[in-house]
Amino acid sequence: MTVALLTDKYELTMLSAALRDGTAQRQATFELFARRLPDGRRFGIVAGTGRLLEALPHFRFDDTALAAVADFCDAATLDFLRDFSFRGDIDGYAEGDLYFPHSPVLTVRGTFAECVLLETLALSIFNHDSAIASAAARMVSAAAKRTLIEMGSRRTHEQAAVAAARAAYIAGFTGTSNLEASRRFGVPALGTSAHAFTMLYTGADGPDEPAAFRAQVAALGVGTTLLVDTYDVTTGIANAVAAAGTELGAVRIDSGDLGVLARQARRQLDDLGATGTRIVVSGDLDEYAIAALRAEPVDIYGVGTSLVTGSGAPTANMVYKLVEVDGRPVRKRSSQKESQGGAKQAVRLSKPTGTITEEVVFPVGQRPAGPDAGRLLTIPLVREGRAVVDVDLASARALVATGLTSIPWEGLKLSHGEPAIPTRTVAP
Amino acid sequence: MTVALLTDKYELTMLSAALRDGTAQRQATFELFARRLPDGRRFGIVAGTGRLLEALPHFRFDDTALAAVADFCDAATLDFLRDFSFRGDIDGYAEGDLYFPHSPVLTVRGTFAECVLLETLALSIFNHDSAIASAAARMVSAAAKRTLIEMGSRRTHEQAAVAAARAAYIAGFTGTSNLEASRRFGVPALGTSAHAFTMLYTGADGPDEPAAFRAQVAALGVGTTLLVDTYDVTTGIANAVAAAGTELGAVRIDSGDLGVLARQARRQLDDLGATGTRIVVSGDLDEYAIAALRAEPVDIYGVGTSLVTGSGAPTANMVYKLVEVDGRPVRKRSSQKESQGGAKQAVRLSKPTGTITEEVVFPVGQRPAGPDAGRLLTIPLVREGRAVVDVDLASARALVATGLTSIPWEGLKLSHGEPAIPTRTVAP
Repeated sequence: MTVALLTDKYELTMLSAALRDGTAQRQATFELFARRLPDGRRFGIVAGTGRLLEALPHFRFDDTALAAVADFCDAATLDFLRDFSFRGDIDGYAEGDLYFPHSPVLTVRGTFAECVLLETLALSIFNHDSAIASAAARMVSAAAKRTLIEMGSRRTHEQAAVAAARAAYIAGFTGTSNLEASRRFGVPALGTSAHAFTMLYTGADGPDEPAAFRAQVAALGVGTTLLVDTYDVTTGIANAVAAAGTELGAVRIDSGDLGVLARQARRQLDDLGATGTRIVVSGDLDEYAIAALRAEPVDIYGVGTSLVTGSGAPTANMVYKLVEVDGRPVRKRSSQKESQGGAKQAVRLSKPTGTITEEVVFPVGQRPAGPDAGRLLTIPLVREGRAVVDVDLASARALVATGLTSIPWEGLKLSHGEPAIPTRTVAP
Repeated sequence: MTVALLTDKYELTMLSAALRDGTAQRQATFELFARRLPDGRRFGIVAGTGRLLEALPHFRFDDTALAAVADFCDAATLDFLRDFSFRGDIDGYAEGDLYFPHSPVLTVRGTFAECVLLETLALSIFNHDSAIASAAARMVSAAAKRTLIEMGSRRTHEQAAVAAARAAYIAGFTGTSNLEASRRFGVPALGTSAHAFTMLYTGADGPDEPAAFRAQVAALGVGTTLLVDTYDVTTGIANAVAAAGTELGAVRIDSGDLGVLARQARRQLDDLGATGTRIVVSGDLDEYAIAALRAEPVDIYGVGTSLVTGSGAPTANMVYKLVEVDGRPVRKRSSQKESQGGAKQAVRLSKPTGTITEEVVFPVGQRPAGPDAGRLLTIPLVREGRAVVDVDLASARALVATGLTSIPWEGLKLSHGEPAIPTRTVAP
């Protein structure tokens, strides 16, 4: 299915104007980057690269798409679109890498015509996915190795939910509630039951939680997770162990003071002999609540709303700017929106311990010399329109994990602050 | 294409457990509602109804979907899913209507099996679309009849962008930058050019803004909108009128102090004789910035990030709760999450002037009598699985417009406060 209409009208009107006088064929370089991190954030996680590479071959104007733009595109533009596929080159940061203000996350080279058409789709993918992955990575850091499950599908657009599950997995979440993310991206799908299931077992005599738990165990086995807070947590836990025995997989608590309830639940489970039964907590958790529960006997966090809404920063606010035309650097001079022209690459410097110290952005081909040459962050992603890297969530996950250990200690604080490392831009 | 996997795994595990013992066939009523409005908001706008009705016939488990769930669903569950289509009834608020805390926005009746499967998809659609429409309506109110254009596609997931454009249009925006929203929903598509187009006209002698403007006017006519802030706004306006003449449609300013620049631009345009040329402003506008520009000579607002992210409230936080099983009211008793059981309807009371005064939620069939019977908000949407209302954006737009004029004056204030009218829940 085409993705070509997931774009803004003005890209096509610009194309139309540029085709008339031949400027559409000028060689252009566009750069996708964030001028700043979301308010107070100390690092960002690049996500969306794989989804963009998967979308690229579908950025074609089929008959439906052509018909949709025929009322404002002239014949020459329609002819161009009919034959269009992106044949340029793309470099960029690997998916899962850290990014900071002015990191050249993506560099798109080709004719103006082909590069300008990708603007909206590329930004939509990176702005959404990076926002989610960046929030998710803070939660992963706050969880200090405990398991995180993404369960926010219901709080965001139904397709954004799928991408959010993917981004959370890249950031280090263990799985998702979302079935389509499991099918499409192989993210492990998790989940057992909601309050509605327990309430379904209501008869003339009122609620019958034991019957609900027995039914769930009969269907899903004793290793399942029973939701124990529909009526009363203490009774719920007693009912849960009565139904499943001491081999019960886990109990989930979705409301109340989760720290207090987790302690009580642990004690009650242990007293009942269910010492291996794990405790899942959920309900309006964000990175701060997760961190606040560190001292409590919580085994698994279920995170919903705050994950899919980027925990206060629902978009990464990346922009896609023309930086070079026919080899000449160009830049805008509008107030407060200055950026350096010319195509760029970046390296990240670190101490021998692995702790990162500086992001250095330099004009292409002018990598700074020195005893610490740093790690080159810019890698080839697309050549002549074809992806030259594999879309591999495992690699992206590994890169996030490495990245989080490379951030200076202060940079992992959840409080608002400056970026964890400075970005230095080398002038041409 | 199926939408059946845009759901959470636990709905299928619940289904599986409930099919084993026959409880899946119990008659159930689920209610979709918001326990509260987003922080400080005074009203919400229902959006998503039309999208849910359109999605409903596609909620089928085809071979791909069945294969995706085969590893955790037993044979009986797979058989059920293979034949599944929703055959129940849905009542709810009309799309575009106002809602308040505990308004029964949607009521879904059928077997537990068929109702529980819709949970995630219904919530995703309503939580996203209502969040956007609610934020958009505040902007529409703040704009005081001036034109608003939605241009935030690049700041949100590429499919969420399409739904956001639709929701903004329902709320009263005039159009969108998004081409797919235009094709799929008939939202007027708008837009002319970006800074990149102006910068494309850079030669050995440097930038050539006049050439860019001439090219755009040649392609799009003098009625086009020229973006004048790439280099210098005053020079840009002079170049714009030189290229298009005094019949120039509009100039757009995308950066800087928009109020000051709009005043200067108006004066300059008038001095040049371009008295009919309109002024479009954009760049990080939200409802507060829009309101602050009321006294300035701004004709059109372009709104991006704040629109598609719900202006601080990216999700409507609606929930989908089982309220009735086999005719018996049921409810959860967890801490802080109490809600009244039983299927409900609602009326909205108003003064003779049309100003609304109270939302009254009552058990189905127990509409309160009285001199002011109010307007019944709950209408039939689906009967035996088939939509019984037309999906009609024009009606939804009209309903929002009427709704905004019906809100008491204090309820339209942009500052944080209580809901514009109280909700009264009538006990059974």
